[in-house]
Amino acid sequence: MTKKKYKAAVIGSGNWGSVAAKLVASNTLNLDSFHDEVRMWVFEETLPNGEKLTDIINITNENIKYLPGIKLGHNVVADPDLEHAVEDANMLVFVTPHQFIEGICKRLVGKIKGGVEAISLIKGMEVKTEGPCMISSLINKQLGVNCCVLMGANIGDEIAMEKFSEATIGYREDKEVAQRWVQIFGTPYFRVSAVRDIEGVELCGTLKNVVAIAAGFVDGLEMGNNAKAAIMRIGLNEMKAFSKLMFPSVCDNTFLESCGIADLITTCLGGRNRKVADAFARSGGKRSFHELETELLQGQKLQGVITAGEVYEVLCQRGWQESFPLFRTVHLICIGCAPPSAIIQQS
Amino acid sequence: MTKKKYKAAVIGSGNWGSVAAKLVASNTLNLDSFHDEVRMWVFEETLPNGEKLTDIINITNENIKYLPGIKLGHNVVADPDLEHAVEDANMLVFVTPHQFIEGICKRLVGKIKGGVEAISLIKGMEVKTEGPCMISSLINKQLGVNCCVLMGANIGDEIAMEKFSEATIGYREDKEVAQRWVQIFGTPYFRVSAVRDIEGVELCGTLKNVVAIAAGFVDGLEMGNNAKAAIMRIGLNEMKAFSKLMFPSVCDNTFLESCGIADLITTCLGGRNRKVADAFARSGGKRSFHELETELLQGQKLQGVITAGEVYEVLCQRGWQESFPLFRTVHLICIGCAPPSAIIQQS
Repeated sequence: MTKKKYKAAVIGSGNWGSVAAKLVASNTLNLDSFHDEVRMWVFEETLPNGEKLTDIINITNENIKYLPGIKLGHNVVADPDLEHAVEDANMLVFVTPHQFIEGICKRLVGKIKGGVEAISLIKGMEVKTEGPCMISSLINKQLGVNCCVLMGANIGDEIAMEKFSEATIGYREDKEVAQRWVQIFGTPYFRVSAVRDIEGVELCGTLKNVVAIAAGFVDGLEMGNNAKAAIMRIGLNEMKAFSKLMFPSVCDNTFLESCGIADLITTCLGGRNRKVADAFARSGGKRSFHELETELLQGQKLQGVITAGEVYEVLCQRGWQESFPLFRTVHLICIGCAPPSAIIQQS
Repeated sequence: MTKKKYKAAVIGSGNWGSVAAKLVASNTLNLDSFHDEVRMWVFEETLPNGEKLTDIINITNENIKYLPGIKLGHNVVADPDLEHAVEDANMLVFVTPHQFIEGICKRLVGKIKGGVEAISLIKGMEVKTEGPCMISSLINKQLGVNCCVLMGANIGDEIAMEKFSEATIGYREDKEVAQRWVQIFGTPYFRVSAVRDIEGVELCGTLKNVVAIAAGFVDGLEMGNNAKAAIMRIGLNEMKAFSKLMFPSVCDNTFLESCGIADLITTCLGGRNRKVADAFARSGGKRSFHELETELLQGQKLQGVITAGEVYEVLCQRGWQESFPLFRTVHLICIGCAPPSAIIQQS
């Protein structure tokens, strides 16, 4: 019998986190080198009936708040204690909202064992005074662990229902580790491939939200399908050019993986960023993004608007504004300095 | 005053042909080197009220059958006589249904003056015993004229309404001629760029219809957005690989032009090929493509089904079946040798 060397834990339990736990748990049961149990850290909530979310998940095997109706697998254990959830794990899956990751990493400093591998499913970046920092770098720097990323055209509910999807894992150097992540995420209905281009994969997942805002403006202004396809195309090209300027190692082919063109398509057709931008354009700019976010997303912040601001900061810092008319214009529209129709006049 | 050196004629007057005539006519009025008049060859039809289509177009300045409600420009002249329509022209725009082009070329042999340039807006290819032949090559060979192509995310009705669109011109060698085509097609709302990759551009326009059939199957089976994006992504990659095997000169960047990714998006979201394939999958394969074409397209043949068959022939001739699972599977489903669900099991 093979020794069980690896133990996975999932940090985060929203919709995508719960789906990730389900995928991983379905594989750990069948992989000899993995412990069956997958701990999932849950930010504890008390439900309207007074029960704790973790208790409900552990009793019903469902995350009734974020992924109702889906059994997670009996080997998924919800744990409200972050340090305890990761205690014995050496394969850490980070899948929290973008704005919480820095605080979570701070809590984990010194609590992580040697030989731990991490993967981030989080989309976004942090722009600091010294320049932009990707989430995988942040995890790597704060915790001293190697961190891969997994991105792609991944609407959580569809994967939970075991409908066919693809995803892309980006890794830096260690192909064997990337293959181990492919093993614990991949299923016949969730086809995962690994590419040696961590920055390219992660930037795809981040930047596509800016393009989705642009696509939402086109929808809201009823400019038609040709215009929407054109904006998506121009957006993909700016994603590629921006990524390559930021990291010369980024590969062209990454944009033809699931994390690139496929994720861009699903995000520009559905998704929150597109939806709120559509409503913004329809209001003729009379209602602010802030107001629409509050109304349509219960106060959650739109990732695309935040990223557009961060990208704009990079463009200004580096004098790249002229080369990225779409990215620039999305930000100017978001902050009310240009009308939504400017999305077509740009470039 | 500049001498008027160029005279344009449009061969074809369906929906896209009428839009092309409108675009060209709006530019010839303002370009000193062009004659104002644009002749448009119309395959004559007698309308239910007994009037001739050409008469109506010339009286109302509208193609009331194929582009109702849109003024073509007073300098567009409908002409039912093919030879007469092209008599003085030296810039020929070919925009007929794919299956008529060979017969039209035969009628024009010997009728074309020296120094004539052509452009094809026609999507499709002819597979002959000696191998596949693109429409631009067919025009070039039969008439001895240089022939560019114009492709892109171009839903005719939207361009007619002057909504923003992009298009790509593919040329072989003569950049100056390509720029002349850009001049007579481009407008502020119809943004045209030229790339030196005629085969790449033309194959994009042809092969995307096969991918649209695959996307229609995914829709009909209600497999979800992740799966549809995945199929479009896999399709784009097969388009690229197939084109590069056929013509090693084909450029990667062509697939990021309007003719590539953007046209693929509009075609997979709307369009006849997607629609009929959707109905086919919903019928559980009980109704044939032939029957659905008759019902949904008034007997018109679906371009994507024809192209899938032609591509399959090339794959078999050259032993490439294994490398193109999506293209192969689309054909096998179309001819009833595989169930629609095979579109996901492939590759």
